[in-house]
Amino acid sequence: MSQKVAIGKLAILLASLSEEELNSFRSSLEEVNYCQGKVGSMNMQKVIAAVETAAKRNGLIQEHLYRETHALYHAILEGIEGVTRGKPVIGEMSRTVGLRFSVVRGSPYHDSKEGEWLAVAFYGTIGAPVKGAEHETVGLGINHI
Amino acid sequence: MSQKVAIGKLAILLASLSEEELNSFRSSLEEVNYCQGKVGSMNMQKVIAAVETAAKRNGLIQEHLYRETHALYHAILEGIEGVTRGKPVIGEMSRTVGLRFSVVRGSPYHDSKEGEWLAVAFYGTIGAPVKGAEHETVGLGINHI
Amino acid sequence: MSQKVAIGKLAILLASLSEEELNSFRSSLEEVNYCQGKVGSMNMQKVIAAVETAAKRNGLIQEHLYRETHALYHAILEGIEGVTRGKPVIGEMSRTVGLRFSVVRGSPYHDSKEGEWLAVAFYGTIGAPVKGAEHETVGLGINHI
Amino acid sequence: MSQKVAIGKLAILLASLSEEELNSFRSSLEEVNYCQGKVGSMNMQKVIAAVETAAKRNGLIQEHLYRETHALYHAILEGIEGVTRGKPVIGEMSRTVGLRFSVVRGSPYHDSKEGEWLAVAFYGTIGAPVKGAEHETVGLGINHI
Amino acid sequence: MSQKVAIGKLAILLASLSEEELNSFRSSLEEVNYCQGKVGSMNMQKVIAAVETAAKRNGLIQEHLYRETHALYHAILEGIEGVTRGKPVIGEMSRTVGLRFSVVRGSPYHDSKEGEWLAVAFYGTIGAPVKGAEHETVGLGINHI
Amino acid sequence: MSQKVAIGKLAILLASLSEEELNSFRSSLEEVNYCQGKVGSMNMQKVIAAVETAAKRNGLIQEHLYRETHALYHAILEGIEGVTRGKPVIGEMSRTVGLRFSVVRGSPYHDSKEGEWLAVAFYGTIGAPVKGAEHETVGLGINHI
Repeated sequence: MSQKVAIGKLAILLASLSEEELNSFRSSLEEVNYCQGKVGSMNMQKVIAAVETAAKRNGLIQEHLYRETHALYHAILEGIEGVTRGKPVIGEMSRTVGLRFSVVRGSPYHDSKEGEWLAVAFYGTIGAPVKGAEHETVGLGINHI
Repeated sequence: MSQKVAIGKLAILLASLSEEELNSFRSSLEEVNYCQGKVGSMNMQKVIAAVETAAKRNGLIQEHLYRETHALYHAILEGIEGVTRGKPVIGEMSRTVGLRFSVVRGSPYHDSKEGEWLAVAFYGTIGAPVKGAEHETVGLGINHI
Repeated sequence: MSQKVAIGKLAILLASLSEEELNSFRSSLEEVNYCQGKVGSMNMQKVIAAVETAAKRNGLIQEHLYRETHALYHAILEGIEGVTRGKPVIGEMSRTVGLRFSVVRGSPYHDSKEGEWLAVAFYGTIGAPVKGAEHETVGLGINHI
Repeated sequence: MSQKVAIGKLAILLASLSEEELNSFRSSLEEVNYCQGKVGSMNMQKVIAAVETAAKRNGLIQEHLYRETHALYHAILEGIEGVTRGKPVIGEMSRTVGLRFSVVRGSPYHDSKEGEWLAVAFYGTIGAPVKGAEHETVGLGINHI
Repeated sequence: MSQKVAIGKLAILLASLSEEELNSFRSSLEEVNYCQGKVGSMNMQKVIAAVETAAKRNGLIQEHLYRETHALYHAILEGIEGVTRGKPVIGEMSRTVGLRFSVVRGSPYHDSKEGEWLAVAFYGTIGAPVKGAEHETVGLGINHI
Repeated sequence: MSQKVAIGKLAILLASLSEEELNSFRSSLEEVNYCQGKVGSMNMQKVIAAVETAAKRNGLIQEHLYRETHALYHAILEGIEGVTRGKPVIGEMSRTVGLRFSVVRGSPYHDSKEGEWLAVAFYGTIGAPVKGAEHETVGLGINHI
């Protein structure tokens, strides 16, 4: 892959690695803006809200611009497709998620006219609402902003 | 997460990191069996076949046991849901993928009765069949075997 | 298209045009039966109920005949696929809709044996539950009745 | 089909036939373990819970093993895909189900290494939350365990 | 269920039982019109065509009436949702089906105004394009006609 | 709706009205850039390519900027969800489409910082590959660019 900065890979690493494990990737992380967060819920609306709130609070998107909210929303939904593997429903399908997430904003392409893009990554567990009855899950969404 | 071995995280790292970047994770990788591969196609059937062939050749699943083929197939399909974000179609939707993948087999849970599980991860690009007109994509599927 | 009456096109116009803009289409509208309505909600069940209630009150379908309820229900759901673009969920995906809708009943084909058909159209906005953070959306469902 | 025991067919018959009609199939039923149950709801979570509870109470799966819960959960979801015809949502889409279900555990293949598999079947009605405004529906899920 | 004739149940039995097993159901079968057939393919279009051709040849639907073709088509697709469990793709997802099918036309409701309905059922196997690497699958679609 | 220019509504009208019928909307059309086209196919890839080619030839998007291709592609796919009602497959599901389409680029919001957006609309027929065995269909996709 000939991209300048792999914002998707960085987002996945931010969501899945420990602070210590992330140390090898600090120089790449300096090329982008990002935030990290956590959310556990059987309610998809809360998962979406957690990412949106973190992105706004950390200045990853401009809060009052619908254009940027729209770009973020679709990146979140695409990440959720990976997490839920094609059925964006959790509680109604009797499952719960415990997720770490990240939002990365950067310029992945060499041509500066390609502008900024967003990556939203999730890593954590999905499973029955019973402790331990769960396995890992990952999702990544990418959008132009 | 209280799992003993995070087979999904290892699968994602195997699919997305360089050999050098993987060095920090060698001790965890020794706890599982795994293989890696590459595939680029507009044809989903070829993507599935590439993973199945690699898994069989490397002894990750027993070739002549349908039970294990079935476990792998569903893990692959769940990974593809992340890659295609809920629409498991590539060529017909005028898009192509260039993917690195991994298959990891291990015992993620402390209780040995939970037995072995498979993780299938994809990392790479998805986009128009035009060089550069693509962005990153990730998928992970997990199944008991 | 060689249809006698384009019930789908009329349904879309009834849902999206102003009363004044509809004036140019009055002669076509005389060839069909129709009703119009409005609904705003984060709850899909309320959207479906609003269309069903309007269709029954205005005599577009026979209230006590399951056959006609069934035809209408599937036409509504197909319209909702367009509105939600393949994921028939609103609130759970943290989005809300503000819709005008129409139900048209007529005989679109020259051959009278093809009988009556229903068209259900939606036009309005879909977006975050924040004023202005929304864009347009359209959906059309067609069924034999 | 050259399977030794058709666990899927038996599951469908257990969910759809009367006790008397099942009499012709008693000898085949002796080759498997099974349970039967009923559930009516607009809430998918209750449908899933009803099958899980019945399977655990009747010893079809080992309650404290996530591995078996995971196998059952995916078999249930696949059955629900048939019942809801690709949209695993009921109440939110303004419909309700009244279902009989069965869980069958057995060894369908001649090769004993293929081990045990689960079949989950549903048969009943789906429709509007109005008495009589409903038609039949069927679903079957199969998984290795 | 208070239906007069369970056309869906009859369709499922016609697709899954042997001629001998069907003998107990002959009196119910006399209340409906039906046909049976077989199809094996990796191509969904051939599966759909096989059912349509059988239904037309056996007079289950009027060949030159789009209204009836439309009713049958949607019943077939709903049956395929069960067979493919929500992803109506076979070859592209590297799987093949071997199916028996049936089409039943009858009047399921006591109220004669509810008219005629169609049931399309599939029973057989789905799996890898390798002999034996397959498990059972079922699907049922119902529509008013 | 408090939008300045309803690009979605204009796109739908461009795809579904005759040149004469469009006359009443000429003043609104002057506020946006747009193109129109036609495509008939059983192959989704051809439908997507027809819209992309028309948009590029008419300068609606900058051909060599992936950012704009990406925005257009997702708007096309969302429009196709409406046309196919949630199953973005045509030939494989034994159906064909005959569509008129439009691409509209404009600034729908009062706040100039919301920038430019794209609307892609489809109107036409979907049905069996038999003349006349088809009904109307509509789709609309919207994206920021």
